[in-house]
Formats: sequence, C-alpha cells, structure tokens
Amino acid sequence: MKIYRFLLDGRPVYGVRREDRLHLIRGSVFEDFVVEEEGVSLGAVRLLPPCEPTKIVAVGVNYRDHARERSKEPPREPLLFLKPPSALIGPGDVILHPSLSDRVDFEGELALVVRRRARRIAPEEDAGAYILGCTCFNDVTARDLQDRDVQFTRAKSFDTFAAAGPCIAAGLSPDNLEIKTFLNGKLRQSSNTRNMIFSVPELLRAVTRVMTLLPGDMVTTGTPAGVGAMQPGDRVDVQIEGIGILSNTVAAENDFPAPRSEPGG
Amino acid sequence: MKIYRFLLDGRPVYGVRREDRLHLIRGSVFEDFVVEEEGVSLGAVRLLPPCEPTKIVAVGVNYRDHARERSKEPPREPLLFLKPPSALIGPGDVILHPSLSDRVDFEGELALVVRRRARRIAPEEDAGAYILGCTCFNDVTARDLQDRDVQFTRAKSFDTFAAAGPCIAAGLSPDNLEIKTFLNGKLRQSSNTRNMIFSVPELLRAVTRVMTLLPGDMVTTGTPAGVGAMQPGDRVDVQIEGIGILSNTVAAENDFPAPRSEPGG
Repeated sequence: MKIYRFLLDGRPVYGVRREDRLHLIRGSVFEDFVVEEEGVSLGAVRLLPPCEPTKIVAVGVNYRDHARERSKEPPREPLLFLKPPSALIGPGDVILHPSLSDRVDFEGELALVVRRRARRIAPEEDAGAYILGCTCFNDVTARDLQDRDVQFTRAKSFDTFAAAGPCIAAGLSPDNLEIKTFLNGKLRQSSNTRNMIFSVPELLRAVTRVMTLLPGDMVTTGTPAGVGAMQPGDRVDVQIEGIGILSNTVAAENDFPAPRSEPGG
Repeated sequence: MKIYRFLLDGRPVYGVRREDRLHLIRGSVFEDFVVEEEGVSLGAVRLLPPCEPTKIVAVGVNYRDHARERSKEPPREPLLFLKPPSALIGPGDVILHPSLSDRVDFEGELALVVRRRARRIAPEEDAGAYILGCTCFNDVTARDLQDRDVQFTRAKSFDTFAAAGPCIAAGLSPDNLEIKTFLNGKLRQSSNTRNMIFSVPELLRAVTRVMTLLPGDMVTTGTPAGVGAMQPGDRVDVQIEGIGILSNTVAAENDFPAPRSEPGG
C-alpha cells in the first residue's frame, strides 16, 4: 500500500494510491483508518513531504563502499546525527544550493517513517512493528562544510537539505531493496539495502536506546557509494524498489526567493 | 516580564507572573496577547518546559575557559549541533542517567526562545526582535560517549538531556548576565554571558544563515568552565540573573520508569 501526503483544497491530507488515483484516508494514518471510495487524480494534486517529523534521525557511514570512498573506517556502532524538520521538502520541491558552500552533494537513502511511539525497542521485539513504511530520502550535504566543521550539523541542516517522498510504502520489507540515484538521468549510485552495515532493526534499536521516536518521525539509513556534487539546474532522482522515484531540482539560493515548502508556513 | 508554561486543568497554558501568582495569557504568547486579571498560585501548578520547540539548536565551545578545560581551540565560527525535542524536560523534572554512559555532565547555559520566524537575519537587523526571551538551560551530556563518538548527537540526545526553565524572561537583554550552576548546592560554574566568544546576535545570524527558526524554537549559547559529572540522587541548579533558577534532580535510568514529561504524551 502506497500512502501519499498532498494538498486538497489547501489542506494537507493523506491518501492511498489505487492505480493513478489517490483515495482519502479517514482517521489517523498512524492508527486504524478507512480509505474512501472516491479518489482524486494523482497528477492533479501537489504532493507534500510524506510526513511531519518532530525529528529526523540520520545515520552516517552505513554502507562499506561509501565508507571507502570517504576514507572512513566503518563504525562499530551506528553513527547518529540529526537533521532539523525545517530542512524537509517534498517531491518536486527545489533544493537550494547555499552560497556558503562550494560543494553540495546528493546522498540517496532509504528512510523509515515511524508509526508509533518507540522507546528502547528490545532485542526480542519486532522493530518493524514501530514503522509505518519506507520512503526515498536525499540527505543533501554541504561536503566542504562537513569536512571543515567536523560536526555534521551545519553541513546537513540547511533549509531544503532533507528531500523525502514521493510516498510511504507501507508493508514493504526494507532489507532487500534496490536503491539508485540518478543525476540528470545518469546513474550515480546503485546498491541494495542488504549492503547496510547495520540493518534496519539494529538502527531502530540503537536510536531508541537513546531517544524516543514519535509517530511521523523519520529515521534514515545511510547512503551507498557514488555520492557527488549537484549544481544549480541539475535534477536528482532517488529510486527505491517498491517505493518509487523522489525527484528534485537544484537552484542557487539567491535565484529563488524561498523554499517552495515554507517551514512552518 | 516572566512568562511561565504550566498545566491548568490538565492543559498546557502560558501565564505571566505577578508576585507569586500566574495570570493566564489570552492569545498567542508569540504575538500580541492579553493578560487576565485573575491568577493562580505559582506554588499550586505543575510547571512545564517553557516552550514547545520544533528544534533545539545548540552551540558548542562558546566560552574560552570551557574551551581550555576541554583542551579545544576556540572555534572560528559558531559550532552548531541539534538536540531533539524529545529530550526536553521542565523545571523539577528528573534527568535520567542512562546506563549506556559512565559520565553524565551538567552544562549550565543561557537559552533563547524564538518569537517569530527567522531566516537569514541581516547584519543591519536587530536580531533581538526575533527573540521572545531568555531561559535557563542544562545541556546534559554523556561525556564519555561524546569523546568516543566524535559526533555530539548521541551524547546529547538522550530523553531528559535538555532541561529548560523555569520561565521565559521577556525583554531581558542577554549580553551581561551572571550565570551559575550548583551541584547539590555547591557552586560549580560561575561566569557572565559577556564572556561568550560569539554574542547572541552573532549566534542568531549564524544559525539563521543555515536554517529557518520558528516560534518556540530554542537556541542555546554554550556553557562556561566548571562542567562536571552528576550522579543519581544529585540535584543541579542553573541560575541566571533576571531569569531565576532551573532545578532538576538526577535518577538512574532503570530506577525510574519513564521521563516525567513523556515525549509526545
């Protein structure tokens, strides 16, 4: 089941896709809900980021080939960092290349959307029960600032630096999915989620050992090898088996008045 | 004017303190509001964290004496990191010492509460106009994990690791305030906010150059020298001139079923 978040009469709503139509969800997407009979055309609505996280927990260096290309040792424990919700944009939104950075990279990733409150998931528990589904994610990174700052925060927190979508694939097992990133249609990253150093359940246990996850929170899972710079005018597509394609374009910060998805607005 | 957030008939509300009574605010605390004539006794209500941030932006190594005690070079630009909203607790709440860490430190800090949406505050703008007021903050840190991880996130993101309060002091200039931290009544940190490496306006410009701040977001300003470990059973007080005292106790994670302020609950 693919769940989309989109604008209907100016209000954000959730709907389930059936062929090329979106059928409204009645009730909470995080609990039991009813899907309405009537639908609207997928092509006629503006899609939004697939959820409204209170936090985006991201994971660094979780594919061996990416560790190699960044000359880093694979970590012994999951390497966690946070991206602010104000960075979140949806499918079709514009990634703004800040003038503060000379190198802004794409990082295609699988991300998980939390379904219910999760604190200290036990080894014997099914971690997947806490997850609503999977989405595509672009962990946009100002590579030069990341290398200069040591701390990842500034490099990964610019407005528009967390692209997610196009939908939440519910009921999709995250452990064996082809993941590809294209820059202007050219394949640049190609891997499979089975190549992660820490599996999705291991990541969820590590995160919830530290912080409580809430419905709508996102947990990303790291990027494979092949990351590279994006320039204004570029288009970047993150494609994951069973989910779809997250497509965004890039513009120079000053060429564009403000993110299309205004944080808080 | 001191603004408190507290529970009234089970609902979170804002009130203004007059002597020992809290007078309810009608309207948004972030916009124009009216203060009601009748008040409730400050001692009779349960205080809450002073705001509901969508993000907590923190600043590392912003006092020279703390840089020295941590054997770090003072940074050339503000060193930013994020703490998740799920870590936030209020005055009187319990800081949980996780079993994952052997050394959990207090870090007394001044924090700012954002009043209105701020993006790229210009050098000629009054940065203070974006701020509702100041509060006391304890940037609780698992020091051993911080040193091991390099990235600050895990060490600073445990549930209960962001204590704030007791109130928002509105109209208080943040640039010359005595700041003290006491462990079990003994003075451990003592400085003045004028000793910051980057001033409050410089921090706000640096943060909003990267990410959009929204009403209720918090920006902390770094801790002076004197940080130290807390043990279960300890009490820690952060006292800032013109604001008041933020007081919290410490308990071992397993001795206490869950944070008193349940994230999202």
